[in-house]
Amino acid sequence: MSPFIGSTAATERWRHLRVTRQDGVATVTLDRPEKLNALTFGAYADLRDLLAELSRERSVRALVLGGEGRGFCSGGDVDEIIGATLAMDTAQLLDFNRMTGQVVRAIRECPFPVIAAVHGVAAGAGAVLALASDFRIADPTARFAFLFTRVGLSGGDMGAAYLLPRVVGLGHATRLLMLGEPVRAPEAERIGLLSEVTEEGKAGVRAAELAAHLAAGPALAYAQTKALLTAELDMPLAASVELDANTQALLMNGRDYAEFHAAFTTKRPPEWKGR
Amino acid sequence: MSPFIGSTAATERWRHLRVTRQDGVATVTLDRPEKLNALTFGAYADLRDLLAELSRERSVRALVLGGEGRGFCSGGDVDEIIGATLAMDTAQLLDFNRMTGQVVRAIRECPFPVIAAVHGVAAGAGAVLALASDFRIADPTARFAFLFTRVGLSGGDMGAAYLLPRVVGLGHATRLLMLGEPVRAPEAERIGLLSEVTEEGKAGVRAAELAAHLAAGPALAYAQTKALLTAELDMPLAASVELDANTQALLMNGRDYAEFHAAFTTKRPPEWKGR
Amino acid sequence: MSPFIGSTAATERWRHLRVTRQDGVATVTLDRPEKLNALTFGAYADLRDLLAELSRERSVRALVLGGEGRGFCSGGDVDEIIGATLAMDTAQLLDFNRMTGQVVRAIRECPFPVIAAVHGVAAGAGAVLALASDFRIADPTARFAFLFTRVGLSGGDMGAAYLLPRVVGLGHATRLLMLGEPVRAPEAERIGLLSEVTEEGKAGVRAAELAAHLAAGPALAYAQTKALLTAELDMPLAASVELDANTQALLMNGRDYAEFHAAFTTKRPPEWKGR
Repeated sequence: MSPFIGSTAATERWRHLRVTRQDGVATVTLDRPEKLNALTFGAYADLRDLLAELSRERSVRALVLGGEGRGFCSGGDVDEIIGATLAMDTAQLLDFNRMTGQVVRAIRECPFPVIAAVHGVAAGAGAVLALASDFRIADPTARFAFLFTRVGLSGGDMGAAYLLPRVVGLGHATRLLMLGEPVRAPEAERIGLLSEVTEEGKAGVRAAELAAHLAAGPALAYAQTKALLTAELDMPLAASVELDANTQALLMNGRDYAEFHAAFTTKRPPEWKGR
Repeated sequence: MSPFIGSTAATERWRHLRVTRQDGVATVTLDRPEKLNALTFGAYADLRDLLAELSRERSVRALVLGGEGRGFCSGGDVDEIIGATLAMDTAQLLDFNRMTGQVVRAIRECPFPVIAAVHGVAAGAGAVLALASDFRIADPTARFAFLFTRVGLSGGDMGAAYLLPRVVGLGHATRLLMLGEPVRAPEAERIGLLSEVTEEGKAGVRAAELAAHLAAGPALAYAQTKALLTAELDMPLAASVELDANTQALLMNGRDYAEFHAAFTTKRPPEWKGR
Repeated sequence: MSPFIGSTAATERWRHLRVTRQDGVATVTLDRPEKLNALTFGAYADLRDLLAELSRERSVRALVLGGEGRGFCSGGDVDEIIGATLAMDTAQLLDFNRMTGQVVRAIRECPFPVIAAVHGVAAGAGAVLALASDFRIADPTARFAFLFTRVGLSGGDMGAAYLLPRVVGLGHATRLLMLGEPVRAPEAERIGLLSEVTEEGKAGVRAAELAAHLAAGPALAYAQTKALLTAELDMPLAASVELDANTQALLMNGRDYAEFHAAFTTKRPPEWKGR
C-alpha cells in the first residue's frame, strides 16, 4: 500500500462491476451477460473511480478486464446510454463524454499493466476499452467493431482516433473507424491489434496467467516501461532518450536491479520486490 | 451546398483532370493514358483547386481518384516537370513544391473520404497521392514505387516521410523511401499499405461501391472521424481525448444520432441526413 | 571530406570496435565473440565518438554494423556494466545512461544510412542498436530480445519506448518491452521489425551489398530522406509538408537531379555525385 493515502476510504462495493483481488492481481469483470455487458453510466463511473483508487493504493500490480457470458462488451447500452443522451443538454453531453475519456486515460496512465481478455463481441466503447489496454488476449471468437459511425457518431471516441493508428497504422485505423465493420481474430492478429490468440474459451485463463507472471515480477520496472510507452508516443526523440536515461539511472539505484545481479551471480532466480 | 459560398464561381471545366459527379460522389480520373497519367503542372493545380472548391461547396460526400488506361499514375512527367524545374530559380522551385504539398494537405484535410482506386503503376507523386488518401483499393496489378531518390531527390516528397511511417511503420517506410523499389500488391497488403485488394480490373468498381456506401451514410460522422484521425496524429493523448469528447457531444446534438435511435427502436434502417 | 573540419584529429585506432572503410562504406564490427559481443563502457564510447567523427568528415556514405562470432550483440556486459553501475552514484548513472542514449541519437541523426546485419542474439542494448538503424537485415538465426525488465530495468532504454512503437506499433512494442521475450526472425519479419531476411549466414554479405549500392548512389538524396524520416516523426503534417517542399527545392538545384535528367534523356545510367 502507498503511504500517500489521504482521507479517502476504499470503496467497499463496486455496484456496477465485479471486482476481485488476489496476490496483487485485480480482476474486473463486466457482468451484465443478459445485455452482452453493455456499459451503463454506472459502469463507466465505476471503471473511472476503481482505476483511480487502485492507482493511489499501489496494492495491485496487474489488472485483468474481461466480460461475463457470451462476449466481452457490446459497448454503450442503446437504451440506457443512447436514449438517455438524447435528452441531455450540451453541458451534460460533454460531462458524459469526458467521463468515458477519463476511463481510457486511466487505463493508459495507471501504474500497472492492464490485460483485456476478449472473447466474442468487443464493440463500440468495449472495443476502445480493449484498445486502451496494454495487452489484448483474445480467443478465436473475438470480434472487434468500432461501430461509432453506425450510430451517427465520430469514430474518434474515447481516444480511438489517437490510439488505433498508433497500434495498427493509419490505413487500417481509417478503415476500421470510418466503416465500423467487424474485425475477427485472424485479421486482428494480422494487423497487430492482438497481443496473443488463445484456444477457444481460454482468453481469461491466459490473461490470468500473464497477470500472475507480471504481478510476481519487477513491478516498478513494468510500471516505468508502461509510463514511458505512454509518454513517449507524445514526445520527440531527443526528449525521449533523455527521459529514458533519467528513468534507468533511477532504477539502477533500485532494489530489483541489485537483486538481479545478486541472483545472476549466485545462479538463483531473483526475488523481485517491485522497488 | 454550403451557405458559406462567397463570390467565387464554380469552375466550369477542369482542363487537366476528368471530373464527374453523381449522387454525392465525385470521381476524378487522371486522364493522360498515353503517358501513364504522368502529372503536369496543370494537373497538380487542378487537384489543388478542385479539392478546395469541393471542400467549400459541401455537395460531395466521397471522392474516388483513379487513372485511365494501363495504370494509376506514373508521377511527375519527366519532360514537363523534371525538365522544366531544372530551369527554375529558387522561388519558383519552392512555389512548385509547395503546390504539390498543398494537394496532399487538401486530401488529408477535405471533409469527405478520398478513395484511391489503384491498378498498375502508382509511382513517385502518384504513390503519394494514393498514400494521402483515406482508402487505397488496389487490384493485383498494383505496383507502388516511391522512386524519388532514383531521380536524385528526397524520399520525403509531398509529406511522404510524414505519412508513410504512420501507415506502414518506420522500418518499411525507410526501406521504401530510401530505395524506391517497387512494392507489389501482396507486399503492400501485408505491410498495411492497402485497405482492400480486389480481383484484377475491379479496383475502380469497388472504389465506386465504397464511395456510394459512404455518400449514403452519416456524412458528418464520417467527416469528423476523418478530421480527428488527421488531427490526432499530431496531438497528445490527453488533448485527443478532450477533442473526442467535444466532438461526440456535438454529434450527440445532431440529427443522425437521433435518427439512429429512432430507427433502431422501430426496427427500420436509418435515413442519414449528414447533419 | 567536409571542409568544416576544425582542430580535431581523426582517431587512429578504435580500441573497442573493429572499424574498416572501403569505397565510402564503413564497416563496424562488435568484436568480443567470446562474450557474444557484450558491450563495455569503451564500446559505447567508441560508437558515440565514431559516429560523431564520421558525421563531421562526410567521407562515409553508408555504415554496416555487425557482430563477430555466434551472434550480433548480447547487450550490456553483466559483469563490466551491470556490476559496475551498482557501485555508481546518481551523477555517474545519469552520465552512463546519457552516453548510451547518445549512441542511439547518433545512429538516427548521422547523415548516412546505417545497416544492422543481425545473426543470432540481438539482446538488450544490442536489440536497440539494431532498432535504431535504418535497415535491419537478418538471417533466420536472428533473435531479438528487449530484456531490460528481466534485469529490473525499464523497457524504455536508449529510446526503445520511443522507437519500437513507431516501427511495430504500440501493441507489439508493449509486449516486447514489457515481457522481454525473444522475437525470432519469422515473427520479427511479420511485425515489421526486419527490412529483409536472408539465407542463414548471409546477413553480413547482403548488408555489405546494400551498403555498396547506397554508397554508389545519390548520397545527398539519401541523407535528406533519412533526415526527414527522423525529423517528421516529431513534426505535424503541415510543417512536414513545408519541410519537404523546402528540401526538394534545395535538391532540385543540386547536381544529381540534373544528372538524372541528362542521363535519362540520353539513355545512359546516371553518375551520382552525392551533391
